Amino acid sequence: MKVFSDIVSLREELSSLKNMNYKIGLVPTMGYLHEGHISLIRTSKGENDITVLSIYVNPTQFALDEDLDNYPTDLENDKKVAKEAGADIIFIPCNEIMYSNNHLTYVTVDNLTNNLCGKSRPTHFNGVTTIVTKLFNIVQPDKAYFGQKDAQQAIIIKKMVNDLNIPIKIIECPIVREKDGLAMSSRNAYLNKNERNKATILYKSLQYAKSLIIKGERNAHKITSNIANMITKESGVNIDYINVVDVNTLEDISILKGNILIAIAVKLGDTRLIDNIRLEVQ
Amino acid sequence: MKVFSDIVSLREELSSLKNMNYKIGLVPTMGYLHEGHISLIRTSKGENDITVLSIYVNPTQFALDEDLDNYPTDLENDKKVAKEAGADIIFIPCNEIMYSNNHLTYVTVDNLTNNLCGKSRPTHFNGVTTIVTKLFNIVQPDKAYFGQKDAQQAIIIKKMVNDLNIPIKIIECPIVREKDGLAMSSRNAYLNKNERNKATILYKSLQYAKSLIIKGERNAHKITSNIANMITKESGVNIDYINVVDVNTLEDISILKGNILIAIAVKLGDTRLIDNIRLEVQ
Repeated sequence: MKVFSDIVSLREELSSLKNMNYKIGLVPTMGYLHEGHISLIRTSKGENDITVLSIYVNPTQFALDEDLDNYPTDLENDKKVAKEAGADIIFIPCNEIMYSNNHLTYVTVDNLTNNLCGKSRPTHFNGVTTIVTKLFNIVQPDKAYFGQKDAQQAIIIKKMVNDLNIPIKIIECPIVREKDGLAMSSRNAYLNKNERNKATILYKSLQYAKSLIIKGERNAHKITSNIANMITKESGVNIDYINVVDVNTLEDISILKGNILIAIAVKLGDTRLIDNIRLEVQ
Repeated sequence: MKVFSDIVSLREELSSLKNMNYKIGLVPTMGYLHEGHISLIRTSKGENDITVLSIYVNPTQFALDEDLDNYPTDLENDKKVAKEAGADIIFIPCNEIMYSNNHLTYVTVDNLTNNLCGKSRPTHFNGVTTIVTKLFNIVQPDKAYFGQKDAQQAIIIKKMVNDLNIPIKIIECPIVREKDGLAMSSRNAYLNKNERNKATILYKSLQYAKSLIIKGERNAHKITSNIANMITKESGVNIDYINVVDVNTLEDISILKGNILIAIAVKLGDTRLIDNIRLEVQ
């Protein structure tokens, strides 16, 4: 496994691999790798000749009051985990390489960025789409891998790729969960033992919502109220949003029909956690 | 010369050429080709194995009150001219191919789009940078060619390419002028004989400004006043802007120093014309 921190030498390496017609998979991450990332790397490994993992905590997707400065990092362990999972190349650039002094260009996706996390984090997705575009242009992979835990992110990136004719196939991979259902996230590292126990309420409430839908409930307000009731019973878990949205528009729906996403964000102490389920409703 | 109107078959053709390691040059245009475009095609021809010309009158770079519906077109003549100039491939997509029903993604370059044409045409450059990004992703050329007549456009595109790590070299080509100095433009076709005669005042005034600078004038306001005085003597020529700006920031300067751009936009009847000169001032 080779590690690169600058664009020129990474591109040289990739150029010689592409000349041999190797297919390239890209797994963009912010590091502090967990089983979710590992599943992305393994999926890429199965579908490509070369898997590139990028690790970059992108400042433009954090607001000033967010956890940029405390975001967990452990590059040495990340390298070990990435190697074991089968990554061939790791790209770990610094801010000076990714953003010149006078960066002025942004990629924006309208509408899809207004609801859910975009509502609470209004500058977040502009940062995501801009850095992902940059990583795509640097690596020029055939395929790129994103987790469904960040459901809105994956939908926005697919729309961006389609709108801008970016010649890359986006692969969404299922959420990987702890045994008790908590979705894997680097931010789980922030949780103390008590918070960690309470955090299971996200998936439990989503599973309960799913059971209601299976029983025939189609009223979105009833679904979100039931989830809210479950979550508010846990002290210290503060709801940011609970929404039932159409998967294509990410707009709230009142009656469940077609491909829907139920998405939750909460704050547990200072830690923001998100989770979601997707369902096809008749 | 091959003509394509859809992205899939163009990409197939380009893919087989790239597999043979051919270097690709792209000349993006809105058609109604003139000597300026021809010089871009010829320059690309000299520097690449394959030259792709795109012809697309991009609606997102026109405001509602602008000349989108009247923009001059002559595709049959364009094909003849492009072939004679040495283009290998022409890409002529329609709106349905370039913008899906629900296009939501835009590329924006801040600051550089605020002054000059960006001031009079506030949505123009978002349209330009978005369509150019799309064409870059569709063709994936090694180099792309832009005329210096659209000086602000070329500077913005170079900044975008740099900020987003787009792996394409941008080549700026000199303004091509009529014998009397009028910069070649598809919009010159709008001018009646009287307006065509008056239009020479743009270049004349820029040349006069240059002579003042050579004689030692360094006060930007004196330069713009002198240009304005010359232009306003021509009845029916209405000034949109006359600015002396720094080439890197496109911000107005008061004292001429370093690489500067003197840029003019006027309206002659309903026709908007632009021109500029670049100078290095000690």
